Amino acid sequence: MTVYDLTTPALLIDGAMLDANLHTMATALPGRRLRPHVKAHKCTALARRQAALGAGGFTCATAREVEGMAAAGLGTDLLLANELADATRLGRLPAPARVTLAVDSDATIEAAARGGVREVVIDVNVGLPRCGCAPEDAGRLARLARDRGLQVRGVMGYEGHVMLLPDRDARAAGTAEAMRLLGAAHADAGGELLSAGGTGTWDLNVWATEIQAGSYALMDTAYAKLGLPFRPALSLLATVVSVSSHHAVADCGLKALGMDHGNPAIDGATVLFCSDEHVTFVPGTPVHVGERIRLWPAHVDPTVAYHAHLHVTDGERVVESWPVDLRGW
Amino acid sequence: MTVYDLTTPALLIDGAMLDANLHTMATALPGRRLRPHVKAHKCTALARRQAALGAGGFTCATAREVEGMAAAGLGTDLLLANELADATRLGRLPAPARVTLAVDSDATIEAAARGGVREVVIDVNVGLPRCGCAPEDAGRLARLARDRGLQVRGVMGYEGHVMLLPDRDARAAGTAEAMRLLGAAHADAGGELLSAGGTGTWDLNVWATEIQAGSYALMDTAYAKLGLPFRPALSLLATVVSVSSHHAVADCGLKALGMDHGNPAIDGATVLFCSDEHVTFVPGTPVHVGERIRLWPAHVDPTVAYHAHLHVTDGERVVESWPVDLRGW
Repeated sequence: MTVYDLTTPALLIDGAMLDANLHTMATALPGRRLRPHVKAHKCTALARRQAALGAGGFTCATAREVEGMAAAGLGTDLLLANELADATRLGRLPAPARVTLAVDSDATIEAAARGGVREVVIDVNVGLPRCGCAPEDAGRLARLARDRGLQVRGVMGYEGHVMLLPDRDARAAGTAEAMRLLGAAHADAGGELLSAGGTGTWDLNVWATEIQAGSYALMDTAYAKLGLPFRPALSLLATVVSVSSHHAVADCGLKALGMDHGNPAIDGATVLFCSDEHVTFVPGTPVHVGERIRLWPAHVDPTVAYHAHLHVTDGERVVESWPVDLRGW
Repeated sequence: MTVYDLTTPALLIDGAMLDANLHTMATALPGRRLRPHVKAHKCTALARRQAALGAGGFTCATAREVEGMAAAGLGTDLLLANELADATRLGRLPAPARVTLAVDSDATIEAAARGGVREVVIDVNVGLPRCGCAPEDAGRLARLARDRGLQVRGVMGYEGHVMLLPDRDARAAGTAEAMRLLGAAHADAGGELLSAGGTGTWDLNVWATEIQAGSYALMDTAYAKLGLPFRPALSLLATVVSVSSHHAVADCGLKALGMDHGNPAIDGATVLFCSDEHVTFVPGTPVHVGERIRLWPAHVDPTVAYHAHLHVTDGERVVESWPVDLRGW
């Protein structure tokens, strides 16, 4: 089977690029130093490759991701790096799944305990205005959790506000400040884990005991701008369906691409805009109806979430097709 | 079952609002005057309601939508308002499905004929830089299609470039100019159909023999700004998972919302930003962990495409759950 046999639009993974990215990261952050985030690919087949390279545990963003990873036999140490108002789905997971849940409030600690969860981390706001308690509240919450019978494995804090800063020094400085806050919280809360980091700070965050990176595996045009040692492995295959003197149109659009980071890129061409099922672009060299083109998505996570499959390629050959089996909630 | 039993995020349809929207449109554009576009909802159960109110045919954007509508028994007159480089999937559809395919070039006419399609419309560029031939080329293409044994049912031309213009007079003027171009193409190409229009021009486009509106059924915040007689029927239910002194966070984000038209809206609150699985917002009145909130998506089509179900509600009661069964390609 080749890429010409695929119905378009279709997500392609360059198998060699993926392996190189996984290998680079696993070498730099061996074993428990890396806790790959599955939200970037939502694919247990890809997670299996990460596990084969030594990843000791995984990070998840949804209960569905936790359940799917556990069902796939990849659940020996799953961190749900997100709060739940109702944790009963996690409490119901059969052994040997081991799940640690983020909590950042009295209410989420109560939800964890009531839902049957046994282990938690205290989620600390280190600068990104999202979830996480105030750093100075981490100790109190850890005590509350322990009083409620929960094992506190440590703290987490995502420095997402610096993750895509183009300047490396600024990313480093922002990471240091964020980890200063998380370190103080950790001192108050206790536990062995200080979980943080992402693809943009994978080598800058030297304070975290484990890095929660996800995008490094497949990459996207936003992360590609940072000069990281990870290469674009994910492209969107589309078919040209219309050509005029001014522009051309291919059969992929808003329902095949996460758009919050803007338009996708096409090598040697200018993308004008995306519609529901179309991308309108000005090609650099003439294209014809039926020609296959490749687009580089701007944001990997919400792009993958639109697709049922990831097709692993070697040149034009499709060597495997992996279900995106962690979609939904 | 109530909305409190749903796993969030979940898309809700206000059943009464939907029925009012469908009724308003079906009354103004009875029978063949309306060809509802299924790309906005990708749901055969919703299409069935449109058919019950008299819609004589439907518009589709993908081969998958055509196949799904035909399989659901809603295929008596389907227009695929999009070009295909390979039309064999349409040619294979069993009777009584009737499919008309848009063509805009020698190559797509050849693809239609070779794929076993029997009926086409000439797709004309009326101002939106996307698919469609130059208006002056429509006559030549119609002759070519007929020479190739295809039945030419007429022309189509989507005035998408004026669809969301906030000023009604500007929309009207733009529609008139677009339909002048399409009318000239129609005179050259022949056939009974002049298919055009959308939710933003549903009553302004008095030249089209049929209007291809789709968004009117569920609506979104972009169309809501136009002062149309259609009301927001689609909302996204989410659960508050984190509350701080500065903001709150609910469990829906970039993987539950089409983002190309910007952030969703929350009544009485200010949305700050969306992340993969979070919306960060400043509530107008205090919220608590576990509270359910509703968001109004900015763009209906790519929002629905992220979800497996649409839940029809009557107040807080869930009266039906419809599969979004036309997703994928």
